[in-house]
Amino acid sequence: MSQTPGPLVVIGGAEDKQGECRILREFVRLAGGAHARIVVMTVATEFPLEVGAQYLEAFDRIGVEDVRTFDVSNRENANAPSAVKAIEQATGVFFTGGDQVRITSLLGGTKIDTLLHKRHQEGMVLAGTSAGASMMSNTMIIEGVPETNPRIGIVDMAPGMEFISGVVIDQHFAQRGRLGRLLSAVAQYPHHLGIGIDENTAFVLQDDEFVVIGAGAVTVIDAGALTYSNLPGLRKNDDLALCGVTLHVLPGGYRFNLRDRVPVIDQNSDKADRTRS
Amino acid sequence: MSQTPGPLVVIGGAEDKQGECRILREFVRLAGGAHARIVVMTVATEFPLEVGAQYLEAFDRIGVEDVRTFDVSNRENANAPSAVKAIEQATGVFFTGGDQVRITSLLGGTKIDTLLHKRHQEGMVLAGTSAGASMMSNTMIIEGVPETNPRIGIVDMAPGMEFISGVVIDQHFAQRGRLGRLLSAVAQYPHHLGIGIDENTAFVLQDDEFVVIGAGAVTVIDAGALTYSNLPGLRKNDDLALCGVTLHVLPGGYRFNLRDRVPVIDQNSDKADRTRS
Repeated sequence: MSQTPGPLVVIGGAEDKQGECRILREFVRLAGGAHARIVVMTVATEFPLEVGAQYLEAFDRIGVEDVRTFDVSNRENANAPSAVKAIEQATGVFFTGGDQVRITSLLGGTKIDTLLHKRHQEGMVLAGTSAGASMMSNTMIIEGVPETNPRIGIVDMAPGMEFISGVVIDQHFAQRGRLGRLLSAVAQYPHHLGIGIDENTAFVLQDDEFVVIGAGAVTVIDAGALTYSNLPGLRKNDDLALCGVTLHVLPGGYRFNLRDRVPVIDQNSDKADRTRS
Repeated sequence: MSQTPGPLVVIGGAEDKQGECRILREFVRLAGGAHARIVVMTVATEFPLEVGAQYLEAFDRIGVEDVRTFDVSNRENANAPSAVKAIEQATGVFFTGGDQVRITSLLGGTKIDTLLHKRHQEGMVLAGTSAGASMMSNTMIIEGVPETNPRIGIVDMAPGMEFISGVVIDQHFAQRGRLGRLLSAVAQYPHHLGIGIDENTAFVLQDDEFVVIGAGAVTVIDAGALTYSNLPGLRKNDDLALCGVTLHVLPGGYRFNLRDRVPVIDQNSDKADRTRS
């Protein structure tokens, strides 16, 4: 078994489950293709049966034979031997959307939590969409007001599940007008890169570099270069002033190096997704 | 009569007309206070009576005695002697929202058009909200898809009324998720600064410098520093890749110099709007 950590597939929500299924197919490919053993974790949602069924159907159509759902409606569930066994054998684990706080509060510190990290370190592919994307980082956005200008008070942050360091992830980015809330997060913590993922779009991270796949773009917001902010002493509902934020928009095929905080442009980048209509 | 051009009050739409009326009051103050002679231009809207009545009422409550509306439903209207006379005597002209193409197509090249530029050059205050804000620049956004990632095809641009050079203005910015369409505009024309104005927010421009007033923020998007874009040869619906865009978020009290493309930070900036709840 490989001792290189597996890829992370971090999805901005509303990924295609009925058409081409580009993102789900890529997850399956990374997890071993037809021989993948997939576990769909529905812990984030209050409707595990419905949500689970959608993914069972999608992965079935893609041609995965070994796929099962696993719900955690209370913390005891997360220590069940059957669950432990399923994840021990899985080549890919997929977290559905819902509420990211359900993931951290129901799963955090359980045997499954420990096992997911161990298996991911050994090479297992881990994917998450929407809430399942947000929880990937060390610090995550749990709530926030969309479609407004940046203020500290519009974004609530909390510890995440610690699969990626140095970033704060937001999903449904363009579709829900979340520039203001992601700016509010990185303005306070400019060490963290803000990563806004559009719907039906994902980044696939391996080592320090990710590549974008899917229909939209990933917007990287780097407050490291801030030339001015009015933050020190600012109150919760005061308007944030930010000067010199750097922004990158990366559609399908484009790459970014998280450690160096720079896009990785190669000759093929600008032809990468040109065939898509 | 002054030969310094008058201030421009450029409003992101949905400005308060019933409460504190901060932006409208500032427009009135600049136009001479209680002695202002205001003309409300309803040319952009298909509902000139309703929209006009809202502003008559608002300016009346603010204490302006001399306020009238002027509609242009066809190009002949725009050459009417009564209209010419009203604008010759006005100290402030206010363009309502609606469709910016109605402004450029119904008013463009008429006597009123010429007169508005002449009077503004002589010191008359000019204000516009929403469509009335977009038309202020040399090149304007006339239509665009909100809440999506940048693509050339999502933004339609056209000649504006040429009151401000070097910028492209978008309004309802945070509220309608318009980052993608403003990025699409400035990616193609990085000479132009993208200025996204939130609702109930405005910038007041005098000479090369503007100051922000109102409830939200003005977001300045500068594509001049682009380190990479995939634009050359890109087709209309291809996804744009943009690296190294600079972004500034400027709430009430903050200043920006359009010629130098830099925020103007002074010691008072960060206290400027702190008293607002």
